[in-house]
Amino acid sequence: MTTPNHTTIVAEKGKQEFFITREFDAPREMVFKAFSEPDLLMQWLGPDNMEMEIEKFDNRSGGSYRFIHTDCNGSGMKFAFNGAIHEVAAPERVIRTFEFEGLPERGHVSLEFLTMEVLPGNRTLLKIQSVFKSVEDRDGLINSGMEGGLNAGFRKLDALFLKGI
Amino acid sequence: MTTPNHTTIVAEKGKQEFFITREFDAPREMVFKAFSEPDLLMQWLGPDNMEMEIEKFDNRSGGSYRFIHTDCNGSGMKFAFNGAIHEVAAPERVIRTFEFEGLPERGHVSLEFLTMEVLPGNRTLLKIQSVFKSVEDRDGLINSGMEGGLNAGFRKLDALFLKGI
Repeated sequence: MTTPNHTTIVAEKGKQEFFITREFDAPREMVFKAFSEPDLLMQWLGPDNMEMEIEKFDNRSGGSYRFIHTDCNGSGMKFAFNGAIHEVAAPERVIRTFEFEGLPERGHVSLEFLTMEVLPGNRTLLKIQSVFKSVEDRDGLINSGMEGGLNAGFRKLDALFLKGI
Repeated sequence: MTTPNHTTIVAEKGKQEFFITREFDAPREMVFKAFSEPDLLMQWLGPDNMEMEIEKFDNRSGGSYRFIHTDCNGSGMKFAFNGAIHEVAAPERVIRTFEFEGLPERGHVSLEFLTMEVLPGNRTLLKIQSVFKSVEDRDGLINSGMEGGLNAGFRKLDALFLKGI
């Protein structure tokens, strides 16, 4: 790996969706595995200095999940996320809902389309499209510091691939 | 019931969502029940002259469903739909995904927010917001004859409430 991989987030003004792209120095099957197996997911998902707990991860079409991140920097704050899984089509696609439980009211749910594409040289292109209930919901998530947490997680994932999983 | 209830569909140009509203001459608990119990759902959902089969309806947060409509007018054509259920909050809200399996490729999934609001006189206002992967997906569903099927179903539901469930 000569240059670090870069995360791109495209959020067109006034639309209720955004697109994330990120390359990984690992073959598609390995990237898909890192998103699918609880013991791997726990090693990389989320910001630094957060401990991750998987309450439920029934990773199949018609399944569901609930993850809890706990801040290890003294505050002990907990951030929980849950969703229903529409489709798991290994090794190329996952479609699932996403809800951050810390919002003032429930029901602000988004729909995520994750696709993994094969690139030359045993590399993989991850694409995530997220579609929201409203433009405000989308912008709220972007302004919550999402990009920092996403990048921190992907850097941990880079390190996992480098080490070998 | 003096005037028939009317279904309104609002689909703003260029947006990847639409909004459906419909009133019913029945209290909210009853409307919610008609959407939630398989033996009731089978009596009204879908266009006329279609036989409905419920392959799966695990109607809870984190559940999933699959319905199949068969054309009784000779053709025997089958139309299947499936989704994952993000939240069931009785008697006011359901959030779930929706996919019509007859499309040329899989993955064109939408996210539905159903809410039921109490109106005076034991009436109920049903609101459905559907959010799509693209404007094209939304327009494709609208142009597939969705409105006719929706109205036929809601008229059968009116009749069920009139008869008493």
